[in-house]
Amino acid sequence: MPEFFTLVSPDDARQKILARVKPIADVETIPTADGLGRVLAEDVVSPQILPEFRRSTVDGYAVRAQDTFGASESLPAYLKLIGEVPMGKASTVTVSAGTLALVHTGGMIPEGADAAVMIENTQISAQDEIEVRRPAAPGENLIQPGEDIQPGDPILSAGSILRAQDIGGLLAVGIATISVRRRPRVAIFATGDEVIEPQEATGPGQVRDVNSYAVAVLVESAGGVAIKGGILPDHFETLLARSQQALGEGADMLVLSAGSSVSVRDMTSEVFNRLGEPGVLVHGVATKPGKPTILGVANGVPVIGLPGNPVSAFVQFMTIGLPVLYRLMGATPPRRLRVRATLTANVASAAGREDYVPCQLVERDGALMADPIFFKSNLIFTLVKADGLLVIPLDKTGLEAGQSVEVVVF
Amino acid sequence: MPEFFTLVSPDDARQKILARVKPIADVETIPTADGLGRVLAEDVVSPQILPEFRRSTVDGYAVRAQDTFGASESLPAYLKLIGEVPMGKASTVTVSAGTLALVHTGGMIPEGADAAVMIENTQISAQDEIEVRRPAAPGENLIQPGEDIQPGDPILSAGSILRAQDIGGLLAVGIATISVRRRPRVAIFATGDEVIEPQEATGPGQVRDVNSYAVAVLVESAGGVAIKGGILPDHFETLLARSQQALGEGADMLVLSAGSSVSVRDMTSEVFNRLGEPGVLVHGVATKPGKPTILGVANGVPVIGLPGNPVSAFVQFMTIGLPVLYRLMGATPPRRLRVRATLTANVASAAGREDYVPCQLVERDGALMADPIFFKSNLIFTLVKADGLLVIPLDKTGLEAGQSVEVVVF
Repeated sequence: MPEFFTLVSPDDARQKILARVKPIADVETIPTADGLGRVLAEDVVSPQILPEFRRSTVDGYAVRAQDTFGASESLPAYLKLIGEVPMGKASTVTVSAGTLALVHTGGMIPEGADAAVMIENTQISAQDEIEVRRPAAPGENLIQPGEDIQPGDPILSAGSILRAQDIGGLLAVGIATISVRRRPRVAIFATGDEVIEPQEATGPGQVRDVNSYAVAVLVESAGGVAIKGGILPDHFETLLARSQQALGEGADMLVLSAGSSVSVRDMTSEVFNRLGEPGVLVHGVATKPGKPTILGVANGVPVIGLPGNPVSAFVQFMTIGLPVLYRLMGATPPRRLRVRATLTANVASAAGREDYVPCQLVERDGALMADPIFFKSNLIFTLVKADGLLVIPLDKTGLEAGQSVEVVVF
Repeated sequence: MPEFFTLVSPDDARQKILARVKPIADVETIPTADGLGRVLAEDVVSPQILPEFRRSTVDGYAVRAQDTFGASESLPAYLKLIGEVPMGKASTVTVSAGTLALVHTGGMIPEGADAAVMIENTQISAQDEIEVRRPAAPGENLIQPGEDIQPGDPILSAGSILRAQDIGGLLAVGIATISVRRRPRVAIFATGDEVIEPQEATGPGQVRDVNSYAVAVLVESAGGVAIKGGILPDHFETLLARSQQALGEGADMLVLSAGSSVSVRDMTSEVFNRLGEPGVLVHGVATKPGKPTILGVANGVPVIGLPGNPVSAFVQFMTIGLPVLYRLMGATPPRRLRVRATLTANVASAAGREDYVPCQLVERDGALMADPIFFKSNLIFTLVKADGLLVIPLDKTGLEAGQSVEVVVF
C-alpha cells in the first residue's frame, strides 16, 4: 500500500526543519569589496573615528562665526582672505579675527575657524577681501570629527547580509577584508526514469530536467553554491549511494527533485531515513501546489525532497528551501518584494491548505491589478507568465474579485 | 566665478539622459542555465509542444471514463488491471472496455484511456482486479499535449531579464542556449586629491574611496560589468585622458565619482563636454541628497558625474545611474522592494526638491514603523544603519509623524 500523507502546515513544516539546522561554523576572509550578499561571521565595530577631521560641507569660506554676526546684504561683513585649504592636505593657515580662508566641500576646516559660509552668500569685494552677506552660526556647514562614527561603535552585526552601502561603510573606515561565513554547498539531484538533460531530444514518455536547474539558480542567487549532481534513476541503491557520496564530499544541504509518483516519494523518504538521524521530519505540506514535499535532517544536514512537477518544486523551494539555506548561512532571510494589487477574479481555496496562485501584475487606469493565472500545477509556463504569487492563507476558503491582495513578486 | 546650478527635477533629469541612450546592440550566446539576470536579445517562441504526450497528474489508474460512470463506495466499478505504464517510456498497453492500467504521476496515459482515477479512490479487490469507487470525467487528472505550451507560442520577449523560472521554462522546451545582450561595461573612476584607496592609512585631510566601490557593486548586481579605474587627481588633462581611454577601450558608460567642490564639478563638466556630443545635459538635480550630479552623453555613451559625498553618490546612482544601465541593457528596470510603514517623526522638506530620507524599519506591536535617520548627507553610516529610503516628492513640504509612507528598501 502506498503511504498517504500526514500533511503539515507550511509554517509548521518550516519550523520543524529550521529547528534542527545550525549555521555553518566555517569562516573565511575575503576582500570587503567582493562581499555583496555574503554573511558577516562576527560583529564589526569601527576601528577609527570618521570623519577624522573637521570637514566643510559646502564650497565657501571658513570663518570665525562671531565675525559674521549681523552680516546682511545691506551690511556685509568684510573679511580678509588669508589663503585656500588644499584638498587632501592639512590646512596650513589659521583663521584669526577678521580673516577667512577659501575651503572646498569635504576640505579641512582650518584652525581658528568654527563655521563655513557658502560661496553663494559671499562676494569678492576687493583683492583679498570677501563680503560675507549672511551670518554663520558656530558649527554651521561643517561636520565634526566622529559625527559619522566613533572608534568602537557597532557597524554591523554577525549575520548581516552585506549590501553595497555596507561595503562602502566598511571601506570608509579602512576595513578592507572581512570575515564571512562559508557559502553553503547545496547538492542537487534530479531523479526519475523519465527525466533527461535539457539539451537532449525527448523520446516517448520523457521530460527534460527543469527543477534541478531552477533550484540551482535560486541557491546561487541567495548566496549558496549549487553542486549539480545530474539525473539519477528511480533506483534506491543509486539514490542512497549518490546522496551519501554528496554528504561525504561536504554538502551542507541535499535537494532531490524527486520523481512524482508515490513509490518514488517513498524511495526518497527511505533514502533520507538511511542517510542519518533523525531522517524524515515532514512528509507532505498542506499547500497547493507542492503537497508532496519531504523534509528531513540527516546528522545535521537538511535534506529536501521536492515534488517532481516544476511549479510545486519551485514554490516549495522558495518558501521552505530558501529559509533553510539562509539558516545555514546564519542570516535572516531578506525581505521579499510584495506589492498590493486588486484581484481581478475570484479564487477558490480549500480551508486548511495554503494556496499559491501565480498572478500577472498589470496596471490599468493607474491601479495595479493582479490577474490570477488558473493552472494545473504541472505547467511550468504558468510561472514564466507570472509576475508573482498570491498567497491564500490556511484559514481562507478563497478570495474575491475586487479585494486588495498582496502578491509576492518573483 | 563658480558656475551655479540650474537644477532639474529628478524625473526630468532621468528623461533627458535616457532619451539619448540606446540599448547595446551586441549580442552573445550563452548556456540558458547561466542566464540569471541576463537580458534576452530577441523574442523567444516555443520550438515544440509541451507536454509532448498525455500525462497523468496523479498516481492511480488510466481508465476509460465511461467505465467508471456511476461508481461509488457502495457500488464500485470492477476493472481488470492489464499492466503498468513505465516512467520515461511509451505505454505498450491499450486500455479497452472493462480494463485499466497502473499509471504514475507524470506518466504517459495509454491509448484507449481518457481519464485517470486517483489511487486513493481505488482498492485492489482480487488478483488483477481493481475496485474503482468514484467516477472519473473524461479528461480528469490528465494534462493534454500542448496544454503547457504550443509550438510558436511566445515564451519571453526581447528585453526580459531572466528569472529562475524563465530558465526553467526555456530548458523545459529544450532551449539550452540563448541569445542575450552583452553586459554593459561601466568604467568607474574616483576623483579627488583627497581620496585614497581603502586599504591605505589616511593622512591629514584624506578620505578613503567609498563611492567607486559602492557604485561598482550596484553595477555588478544589476547585471553590468564594473571596470574600476582607480583614483584620479583633480587634474583636467588626466581626467580627460583617462576618460577618453576608457571610452576608447569600449566602456558603454562612464561614472566619475567626482570631487565635491565646485571647481572639480566644473572640471567634470568640461571633461564630459570634451568627450563627445552633446556633452553635459544636466548640471544639478533638485534632490536632497545629491544636488550636484552631472549627467551627459558623449557620442552615445552616458557619462555621469556623481557628487563626492557617499550618500549623495549612492542615492543618485540608484535613482538615475541604474535606470541608465538598464536602458543600455535594453531592459525595463525590475520593481524595487517598497514597504508601507508608519512614519514615527515629522520630516521637513523644501517644495520643489525631492528628498530621500534614510529610514530604519522596525516592527512595534505588530506594525511596521519607519524611523527617519536625521543626517548630514556626507555621513556614510546613515546608509549603513538604514533599511531604506523614504521619498518625499517635489510638491510636498514634509511628512508628518503617524502618516503611512512608502519606503524603498535597499
